[in-house]
Order: sequence, then C-alpha cells, then structure tokens
Amino acid sequence: MNDLAYPAPSASRLAARYRHDLPAQTIWNDTLDLLLSHRSVRAYLPDALPEGTLEALVAAAQSAASSSNLQAWSVIAVEEPARKARLAALAGNQKHIVEAPLLLVWLVDLNRLGAIAQAREQPAEALEYFDSFLLGAVDAALAAQNAVVALESLGLGGVYIGALRNKPLEVAAELGLPANVLAVFGLVVGYPDLARPADVKPRLPQEAVLFREQYGFGEAGLRAVEAYNARFREFQREQGLPEQDWSAQAGNRVRNVDSLNGRHMLHDALHRLGFGLK
Amino acid sequence: MNDLAYPAPSASRLAARYRHDLPAQTIWNDTLDLLLSHRSVRAYLPDALPEGTLEALVAAAQSAASSSNLQAWSVIAVEEPARKARLAALAGNQKHIVEAPLLLVWLVDLNRLGAIAQAREQPAEALEYFDSFLLGAVDAALAAQNAVVALESLGLGGVYIGALRNKPLEVAAELGLPANVLAVFGLVVGYPDLARPADVKPRLPQEAVLFREQYGFGEAGLRAVEAYNARFREFQREQGLPEQDWSAQAGNRVRNVDSLNGRHMLHDALHRLGFGLK
Repeated sequence: MNDLAYPAPSASRLAARYRHDLPAQTIWNDTLDLLLSHRSVRAYLPDALPEGTLEALVAAAQSAASSSNLQAWSVIAVEEPARKARLAALAGNQKHIVEAPLLLVWLVDLNRLGAIAQAREQPAEALEYFDSFLLGAVDAALAAQNAVVALESLGLGGVYIGALRNKPLEVAAELGLPANVLAVFGLVVGYPDLARPADVKPRLPQEAVLFREQYGFGEAGLRAVEAYNARFREFQREQGLPEQDWSAQAGNRVRNVDSLNGRHMLHDALHRLGFGLK
Repeated sequence: MNDLAYPAPSASRLAARYRHDLPAQTIWNDTLDLLLSHRSVRAYLPDALPEGTLEALVAAAQSAASSSNLQAWSVIAVEEPARKARLAALAGNQKHIVEAPLLLVWLVDLNRLGAIAQAREQPAEALEYFDSFLLGAVDAALAAQNAVVALESLGLGGVYIGALRNKPLEVAAELGLPANVLAVFGLVVGYPDLARPADVKPRLPQEAVLFREQYGFGEAGLRAVEAYNARFREFQREQGLPEQDWSAQAGNRVRNVDSLNGRHMLHDALHRLGFGLK
C-alpha cells in the first residue's frame, strides 16, 4: 500500500505559503495544490452564484465529520442586501459582506437537539455543559472549512467573518436565533474581483507549530518566529502595506481588551443567549 | 464569470450522503466528489505512512484561514506506540488509536502568543478572555479539516477523537502541555483496512440544517428529522448495527451528565490548564 507514486511537489505553492522556510515535502496532488492556494478574498464582483451552489456547499459541509454524529450546527444563507448590510455594520463595517452575493452564517446549534429531546419528552442535561458548546463550535468549523474547500474548487472566493462575534446579541436578533444558538462566524462567498487580487499569506514555519511526541514551542520556536517576521515584512511590502513584524501585529491584537472589539463580552452574551457552559 | 460548465452531479455520492432526501444539486467536480466521499475510518492497517506525509498534511492545515492570522493552534504528531497506547486508554480505549501509525493531537495554543508577547515585554490581556479560547478552537478545527481533506485525497483514512477531552489534565501531562494549551481533539491517520470497510454516514436533510435569511428549525424541521430517522435505521441495518432512530441515539447522547464521559468537568479543567475564559 505504501508504494503510491505521487507527483512532485509544487515548489511555487510551498514558496508562497512558507517563503524561505520550505518544509521537506515530497508529496503532492491536485487537492494539496488547491488547499495550499487558499487566500481570503475581500474584494468581490456582484455576480450572482450559479444555481445549486448553495446546496453543493452545504452538501460538502454536511460531509465533514460530526462529533457523535450530533450535527450540532446549522447555517443561515443571507442574500437579502438590506440584511447583509445590517450584518456588515454589526461586524465592523466590512464592505465585502455587502459586495458579495452570499453571506453564510455558521451557527453553534444546541437548539435542534434540545427540541428533539423535548419532542421525545426526555431531558437534555448534557447540552448545559461547556463541552457541548465546544463540540458545536468545532462541528461548525469542520463543516464550514469543507464549504471553503468546495467553493474554492469552483473558482469562487471566501473569507471568514469572526467579527460576527463582536455584537452577538444584535446578530442573534437580526437572524431570529432561538436560545442555545450562537452565530459563531460568517463566511462571505462570491466571485473574486481579479482587479483587486488577494495573495497567499505566508504562515509560521512548521517547526513553530508542529511538534513530535510532546509540546515543544520554546527558544527554537521563538527563533523560527523571528525568521517568519522577516518573511512577513517582505509580504507586507509586496502588498503595499506598512511593514510590520508578525510578532508586533499579533502582539497588538492580543495586547488588551480594546483589541477585542466587544468580544470581551462574549462570555456574558453566551449566558444571555441561553448557553449553560457549566 | 457565471457560465462555468460543471460536470453533472454524482447521484451515487449524494444518495450515500442523503439517501432519499437528495438536495437539488446541479454542480459537481472532483473536489466535491472527494468531500462527499468522506467516511470516518476506525479500522487501520499497521503500514507506515510515506515519507513527507506529515509535512504535507501540516502544510494543508496551515493553509486554512486563521482569525487575524493569529495562528492560535499547534499540532503534536504522536507515533511512539507506548504513548499512543496511553492516549488511547485516556480516550475510552479506542483501539484504532493504537492500530494506526499516527495520532495528530490538535491544540488550542494561546501559549505561543503569550510567549511572544512576553519576549516583547508586552501584556497579552486579550488571551484571558473567552473569545480567545474560542478563536483558538475554531482555528484548530479549520486547520484539522484541511488536513483531513488532504489525507483523504492521498488515499489515507482518518477519524477525529473528541474523547481526548474526557481526561484533559491527564492528556496535558502526557503531552507536556504548558499553561493555556488544550488538546481539543485528536485525529488518527493511517491506511484504511479495506477488509473492515467504513461506510458513508447519512446526514440530516438540508432543510433541517440550512435556513434562508433567518433561523428556521421548527415543525417542518422535526418532520425532516423523522424522515432522517427512517434513513438512519436503514443505514444501521445495512451496517449490521442495532436499528435505532437518530433522534433516540442523539437524545441518549445528550440526555444527562453520564453520557459526557468526564467531559462535564471540562470547564473546571480549562481553568486548571490556565485559561482565563473571562
């Protein structure tokens, strides 16, 4: 079984993802080529999606694994311009939400399981625990990522919208969410505007994120981050952005509560949305 | 841009995933075919993986989107048989963890960002908030799902191990995790034993999980679940498993604390592991 003949790796894809810190990769195929080509698209054409696109993306999403097959997630397809505009305003005025034809809002959904238990006149105590919330968030993310792989394979572009968690109560009201449901993130879908192209963002060298047998981020990891900082500045320069170390950018993002843009209230909001989180 | 010619959908893939509740799907390609073919593999050959497989999977994982490019996840590749056996024991004695050559343990990693801030002599207060934990869990899941797509494209099989959260403190000790790091789930990787094949598990009809403009699981959703129960019993029968409604299986899984297998202590464990979760 081990003598599969894989094509040679694509040096250009690896170079875009890692710049000068290429992993020792000897395996390649069209799927890896697609996955490594990912870039988050923030400039869209207004063109409508072909009929059946939404159903295809959801079929891909539902094909991802689900913990204990609980399927503790749902998704809302928002296409009405006025609602997209209101959600864009709630998510820090991200114009690409308005620009693209489709916003998928991914939900941690413990309501469906609760409703099913209620119909069976059974308790659903486990849903009140932290692990059930986490299970739903992981299920939703696995599903959404399959949708991203699918949409990119169709020549579409996407970008996740974590800022939907900036104002979770307002987003819940806009989407008519019942108790025990959180809009955990959005996903904009549309045709990339190739006149305003996105580029592949370089990532940390593998030695900073991949460990063997036990956790191992230490001095060598910090040196790998320094090497990454140089690649990251190079990328920023190419993009016409202010040159900044990734360490500085990430450090500023986690420095204090202000950078959370309201998300420091998420825990409180989750309780208001009905999650037990015990 | 909208006149792309897609091949006809594969009725057999959709039929396996939805049985008799096929979505109106008119779009298809090789990537959708791969994604819809997913099945969780719980029977493996002992064969080693080809050289470079791990690096390829991690390159795919790192190519997934990351919130604010914080890259708040890491992964540990566990290959030592004794450590895999100990982790299998901690995860409810799942024999496929022992059987397969590789266990990837996916981590919510807020330690790396903390260490970088410390090296810069800056505070990292945002890491103490709930949203940062959730961000790391979502980042880890997006990354892991890309790895799953990659490994399945290479003819390998995988299965997620949520039960690594049954005993999070013991798992953290085994893997030498520092504070602010959680082993959020595992992923077994290996060659499927085709003598003990896994099958595509049917999922809920799309009308029970996909809503338009606003949330909409209600009476029609409950009827869709009833239809799914019949498809699910059919699947169980084919697999030689006891026939059971999905509603009953899922209902029992969320009924009470016992079904959480220790995960009702996860919130407490996260605090012990150093997460602020404010």
